[in-house]
Amino acid sequence: MIILSIDDHNVEPPTVFDGRLEAKFADRAPKMVRDDKGKDHWLFEGKDVATVGLNATVSWPKEEWGMDPSSIAEMRPGVYLVDERVRDMDRNGILASMCFPSLPGFSGGRFYEAQDKELASAVLQAYNDWHIEDWCGSHRGRFIPLAIVQGWDPELAAAEIRRVAAKGVRAISLPELPHLLGLPSYVSDYWNPIWQACSETAVVVCLHIGQGLDAINMGPDFSIDNFMVLATQVSVLCTQDLIWGPAMRSFPDLKFAFSEGGIGWIPFLLDRIDRHYENQKHTGQDFGDKLPSEVFREHSLACFISDPTSLKLYKEIGPEIIAFEVDYPHSDSVWPNAPEFLLQQCQDAGMSDDEIDLVTYKNVARFCSYDPFTHIPKEKATVGALRAQSPDVDTSVVSRAEFRKRYESNPAFDVASA
Amino acid sequence: MIILSIDDHNVEPPTVFDGRLEAKFADRAPKMVRDDKGKDHWLFEGKDVATVGLNATVSWPKEEWGMDPSSIAEMRPGVYLVDERVRDMDRNGILASMCFPSLPGFSGGRFYEAQDKELASAVLQAYNDWHIEDWCGSHRGRFIPLAIVQGWDPELAAAEIRRVAAKGVRAISLPELPHLLGLPSYVSDYWNPIWQACSETAVVVCLHIGQGLDAINMGPDFSIDNFMVLATQVSVLCTQDLIWGPAMRSFPDLKFAFSEGGIGWIPFLLDRIDRHYENQKHTGQDFGDKLPSEVFREHSLACFISDPTSLKLYKEIGPEIIAFEVDYPHSDSVWPNAPEFLLQQCQDAGMSDDEIDLVTYKNVARFCSYDPFTHIPKEKATVGALRAQSPDVDTSVVSRAEFRKRYESNPAFDVASA
Repeated sequence: MIILSIDDHNVEPPTVFDGRLEAKFADRAPKMVRDDKGKDHWLFEGKDVATVGLNATVSWPKEEWGMDPSSIAEMRPGVYLVDERVRDMDRNGILASMCFPSLPGFSGGRFYEAQDKELASAVLQAYNDWHIEDWCGSHRGRFIPLAIVQGWDPELAAAEIRRVAAKGVRAISLPELPHLLGLPSYVSDYWNPIWQACSETAVVVCLHIGQGLDAINMGPDFSIDNFMVLATQVSVLCTQDLIWGPAMRSFPDLKFAFSEGGIGWIPFLLDRIDRHYENQKHTGQDFGDKLPSEVFREHSLACFISDPTSLKLYKEIGPEIIAFEVDYPHSDSVWPNAPEFLLQQCQDAGMSDDEIDLVTYKNVARFCSYDPFTHIPKEKATVGALRAQSPDVDTSVVSRAEFRKRYESNPAFDVASA
Repeated sequence: MIILSIDDHNVEPPTVFDGRLEAKFADRAPKMVRDDKGKDHWLFEGKDVATVGLNATVSWPKEEWGMDPSSIAEMRPGVYLVDERVRDMDRNGILASMCFPSLPGFSGGRFYEAQDKELASAVLQAYNDWHIEDWCGSHRGRFIPLAIVQGWDPELAAAEIRRVAAKGVRAISLPELPHLLGLPSYVSDYWNPIWQACSETAVVVCLHIGQGLDAINMGPDFSIDNFMVLATQVSVLCTQDLIWGPAMRSFPDLKFAFSEGGIGWIPFLLDRIDRHYENQKHTGQDFGDKLPSEVFREHSLACFISDPTSLKLYKEIGPEIIAFEVDYPHSDSVWPNAPEFLLQQCQDAGMSDDEIDLVTYKNVARFCSYDPFTHIPKEKATVGALRAQSPDVDTSVVSRAEFRKRYESNPAFDVASA
């Protein structure tokens, strides 16, 4: 069994921008500070833009989970130290991982909101370089590089896509619903320069859940459970803008990964879209000789962690558009037994071994134009071989207090007081 | 084959309030007027509250469909004349139908927004009496009576539920997301008097799609296709408020029908809710010895027209919580060949004859405490027997202009000019 995980997260160490910015910007880079409660925050342009470690719960006891701000001191070191991350991946049988940013938001949204866009662009490029060189570059063959782009300026973003593609980046992360950021939505042609650059470079566009929840009015007294469960439903909103707008129809080579979106929304949505398209001719949509569902399948990769019932419809959904992801270190993630967890789901769904290979690694490799065996031969890429490489990884449940104690006796980073 | 349709619509004739209101309210009832383009509108409290026949497209040519206002003159007479409706039901093999209101909105929302709530309550009661006596009462055994209630005053609504239940009503229609109307959402205990009255009278609560779309910010330039397809996604929002709030947990006998919601959202949502519940203990939810999915299944009926792929998961969803509906006369409806359309879906999904009976009529009968054979013996209730009763129903495609010509030569109702 070989596994690529198309959605994980890194939490950035405080050193992420060190030595990566021109002098005129260096002092104005985001800066991590620790408050008097011991929580870490990122400051940028005079504002607290991000709390650190939100939801980075891996290996904590369940009763300590939550959506509270945290500190790198309380986190499992694999969350923010790349060498430790790779050991945790070994233990989880993950050959290679695509990691989404934390500080900038999953698609860099905090830089979209910056006042000084020249600064924001410089910081964003420094961030990408850190991700490519320090994070992914430190362990060749273990990460699929992902970049963020300047969505507030599609031509600038297109140039950044070409720049990072040349450095090995295989995907970019974009907002699920850019109209929530005051930008045109994906039904407009504003995004065409980005679609064009991605098409030319075979760079995948990732649309990660959790960014579009503000699109839904859940009422003044909504339940946090409602909020957390709904996250995956936003993939439907995003998908429809891509279907009815120009993205999927006008850019035949463009590819979208619905990161952490799950798969269960797909059969329901596609049946309804096809029936709508065939019934409601008065809306004037035209997909030529195809159905909208066919166009969707040509462009999409559905990324899931746990969706056991819907996986039984894998043949109808399309076994070639489904991919597994781990979501390390978030609370929905599966660690350290992802292979067993995934295999059970696939077998319960009735998949053959060949079909399981599609979902565990072949679909990601094809979709991202990523050869997983360039740096690591296949026989060293299996779950068994990876686990044998790091037999001593501690998988026990560890409290936040215990992590802090370990950190303080041997701090990995200095963080300034707020 | 026997079919009950748990979701259709009547379009009200202009005479709906005639003779049904006290003198002090009679002049202030909603009034249908025809504008200089020949479109019909309802006026209430000095405002144009509803255009007539929106989406009542049955038997129109596809190129004439749309969401434009229309006139009863352009509609198939079965839309607004009950004798014609029953003949159309005969032709479609439908033994009995639950009909949702048009003028008041699917759950009476236009009365919720009235300035004079005493007037609104009187009009609402008159509407219910018309529905029970004139519409449903004219053909015994052919309609399952449905009422609207005063959601702006839950105690008043509870009294209305008891009043109409005594007259044979088996369900009420409520807003999907009442917080959009400025009322507390379903996570609050505001609704408890209504839940209590429905529990005591075994009256089902119907939550019809199309009412909650304003909860979703689709962007300034959203596609009408996105809007129309998303309607069924709102059932997820509504369901979560009922699951996380008191409704499903505190009222064991309470029942919810997700009218026109489809079924494909259910496996995806329930898998995610159960995993969330078991993982995210920190949110403090408690379902006792059950999973949230079990609680949902005890309280819910999923109503669908066309959901062929998801129906293949009928065993996982629960064959006893799925019911068919026709949606006559809207553009998503299936007429005049609902039996063939439904049977094909069920057979493609691999259902046995006994399971098909559940979906076509037994689930609705049990859920609504409605005996379909009280007035009509079983042998006269089959698709074949009903069709034999009305062999001369015209099923040809008829243009709006042709309907208007027929209407003008023999107008069913006088409508005042605006």
